[in-house]
Amino acid sequence: MISDAIAALQTLLGDRLNQSTSDRNLHGQSESHFTTTPPDAVAYPTSTDEVRAIVEICHQHNCPMIGWGTGTSLEGHTLAVRGGVTVDFSRMAAVLEVSPQDMTVRIQPGVTREALNEELRATGLFFPVDPGANASLGGMAATRASGTTAVRYGTMRDNVLGLEVVMADGAVVRTGTEARKTASGYDLTGLFVGSEGTLGLITELTLRLQGQPEAISAGVCSFDTINQAVAAVIDTIQMGLPMARIEFIDAATVAAVNQYSDAGLPELPHLLVEFHGSEAGVAEQSETFGLIVAEHDAHDFKWATQAEDRSALWKMRHTAYYAVLACHPGAGAMVTDICVPISKLANAVEQTSAEINQSGIAGPIMGHVGDGNFHAILMIDPDKPDDLKTAKNLSERMVTRALEMGGTATGEHGIGIGKLDYMAREHGHGWTLMSNIKRALDPQDIMNPGKLLRQN
Amino acid sequence: MISDAIAALQTLLGDRLNQSTSDRNLHGQSESHFTTTPPDAVAYPTSTDEVRAIVEICHQHNCPMIGWGTGTSLEGHTLAVRGGVTVDFSRMAAVLEVSPQDMTVRIQPGVTREALNEELRATGLFFPVDPGANASLGGMAATRASGTTAVRYGTMRDNVLGLEVVMADGAVVRTGTEARKTASGYDLTGLFVGSEGTLGLITELTLRLQGQPEAISAGVCSFDTINQAVAAVIDTIQMGLPMARIEFIDAATVAAVNQYSDAGLPELPHLLVEFHGSEAGVAEQSETFGLIVAEHDAHDFKWATQAEDRSALWKMRHTAYYAVLACHPGAGAMVTDICVPISKLANAVEQTSAEINQSGIAGPIMGHVGDGNFHAILMIDPDKPDDLKTAKNLSERMVTRALEMGGTATGEHGIGIGKLDYMAREHGHGWTLMSNIKRALDPQDIMNPGKLLRQN
Repeated sequence: MISDAIAALQTLLGDRLNQSTSDRNLHGQSESHFTTTPPDAVAYPTSTDEVRAIVEICHQHNCPMIGWGTGTSLEGHTLAVRGGVTVDFSRMAAVLEVSPQDMTVRIQPGVTREALNEELRATGLFFPVDPGANASLGGMAATRASGTTAVRYGTMRDNVLGLEVVMADGAVVRTGTEARKTASGYDLTGLFVGSEGTLGLITELTLRLQGQPEAISAGVCSFDTINQAVAAVIDTIQMGLPMARIEFIDAATVAAVNQYSDAGLPELPHLLVEFHGSEAGVAEQSETFGLIVAEHDAHDFKWATQAEDRSALWKMRHTAYYAVLACHPGAGAMVTDICVPISKLANAVEQTSAEINQSGIAGPIMGHVGDGNFHAILMIDPDKPDDLKTAKNLSERMVTRALEMGGTATGEHGIGIGKLDYMAREHGHGWTLMSNIKRALDPQDIMNPGKLLRQN
Repeated sequence: MISDAIAALQTLLGDRLNQSTSDRNLHGQSESHFTTTPPDAVAYPTSTDEVRAIVEICHQHNCPMIGWGTGTSLEGHTLAVRGGVTVDFSRMAAVLEVSPQDMTVRIQPGVTREALNEELRATGLFFPVDPGANASLGGMAATRASGTTAVRYGTMRDNVLGLEVVMADGAVVRTGTEARKTASGYDLTGLFVGSEGTLGLITELTLRLQGQPEAISAGVCSFDTINQAVAAVIDTIQMGLPMARIEFIDAATVAAVNQYSDAGLPELPHLLVEFHGSEAGVAEQSETFGLIVAEHDAHDFKWATQAEDRSALWKMRHTAYYAVLACHPGAGAMVTDICVPISKLANAVEQTSAEINQSGIAGPIMGHVGDGNFHAILMIDPDKPDDLKTAKNLSERMVTRALEMGGTATGEHGIGIGKLDYMAREHGHGWTLMSNIKRALDPQDIMNPGKLLRQN
């Protein structure tokens, strides 16, 4: 019984167990279109030992547990669909140990991406994964986050060396090592990364760091067609140019950005690119990139060589979501993402764009095109009851197309509850294997139940 | 009963089921010090459907199955420790589809690394993972192989996008997608990569390819001490220089290489390095590397700018193992590998070297130092009964030291039966989780039983 668990947790945690309506509602919200679904209580542990004690109590009383970082996930990962206790890691946010020689850092799960990089600034190192939101690293690991820099530095899959995880029965497991690779046994680290809190609660992470690049150059250019922009990206990849970021924004996104921040860009499909390396290296790469996009009839090519110009460029990209929202006052948004093989990307974007244009709702498109990953921000007017249904249909057609093209239902936002319906279609018997693994590690189904899997 | 399975398999496969002593012995050998342990029969399937039929028969009759690529693993992965049927994939060796735009390839598991790169030559693409041996890609995935280029391109963990796997009950699962990343569900691909055939038989792989670099430069230099060589490597990593390979060989290895191939190198610790990139890029990187090693008092620095010089350099590295064997005629070898955090590498190599020198047996050291991974080739004279014991003791001390340093019992050779004794020590409760996963996916323990896990 959940109530028995809560009584015992209150004794354990005192006022670090919060049952107020406001705090429960705060932890029942999402940054997407889902209905608020609050937990029965919110726990604020301060140590792994305390997390273990919380889990042991919940295990004894069959009470669901949901990990919480910053609440920025987009597919309802943290909604308390079966009630229970949300475990908020905001008080476990210490950087435990930086190892500059090994280029690793050991942290608690509540550390946010920006806080980590602030802490690392003086070391000459940085943590590269950047999903846009200032998410917690625990949450980023749990959802296998990626973002603009994944094309160069990989996703959380590639940047988590090891984890400490409290399992559903309270057992504490350490996965991985501090070495850069291992051939010792099943890749448990990789199994937990992206498991969306359904296998255990992450209480510590060892992350791989990168050296801050000596030089950075960034640029922006526009194209008449989506196809030209994407063809330029494919050529750049095939030339082996090591792009640190390569972002696509469509004409509708540019229009919103112009309106929001007076950017004055031509309302055409754009590419934003960034190179990291030595002075001579980024100069050469920029030049080569300039030649490639020129072959695809790019317009208005501009390099941002100064730090402030670059930062304006990426601020524009990162605020594009808010620019789009600002252009539709009062509207909500369903933010959906798919990922397809690069060769299918132009088709996928063009067909999606055409369908959105015919649908009657707005849906600017932007994406991490170097990975074949793009997003549509499907705008929902709360006064128009059909908009949500239209958005869901559009999202379903995007996913169907991605799967037909050999891609995936989600490149980076994950499954949560939002994409459960596509799991059987994408994975076939593999989804059953996932269920079998879950049952082996969490037979009671108390770790973030109802997400990623349907156990009953 | 195994015999019932074999009778049924004979009906299924005809003369593609081989029970001859010679073929069984061939498949019961290893390239290491283990006793020949043959299976009861060897099956040669030609399709996934046939593999499924084999597995269904073995499942029905509780008969162990062992996947076989080229038999080059070093920890006894393919020994039939509980008898059963070895499934030899040499007749499933087709390159199914190259997708140049996506930079991916779909292959059958029996394709070898060299055959794949030969097939890719005209496309401008290559598959980068290079463990030295001309292993099959199925075997390389099953053992999470890496090698000299992992420092730049990653291991099999990073280069397998998707798999087709026949599970212990005959179910066929497809994992991953053709897209470059996914956030959809548990990382089943990552779970199978490195599972050493204990969860299923890999019948197809989708691999990520790389563009052939425009320019390559390679170089070699020597140092007075191991410490200086390793310190130079650490500085190079921290400068962010993108080394494609960085290999260490100790003075004893150099002596063997000199004797074997008249290389005429100074008998000192050496680094071998390679850069991939644009002409200007590799020139700049080579120059920077030259400055770094000069600061660590490197001697005899030589660049191999011509293809034939480079190829001589890497041939020397890849034949170092045979050079060492040739210097000890009639001796066997225990080849062991560990991986430690980079900051601990110099200590780990020096302490290992000192222990080997005191042990009375020879044991040249070489390694992929950019990853913190190194090997000792511990020479065993069959006429000296204590040598094997001495080698085992040395290997155990290497592993103990690696674990104390925050590293792993094996960077790339895997567990097999050779390193089972260290699993509990390295993984603690994590090893139990691995067992639970195995039990969930192969409850009969018929998939390569006795490797990586002790199920009973």
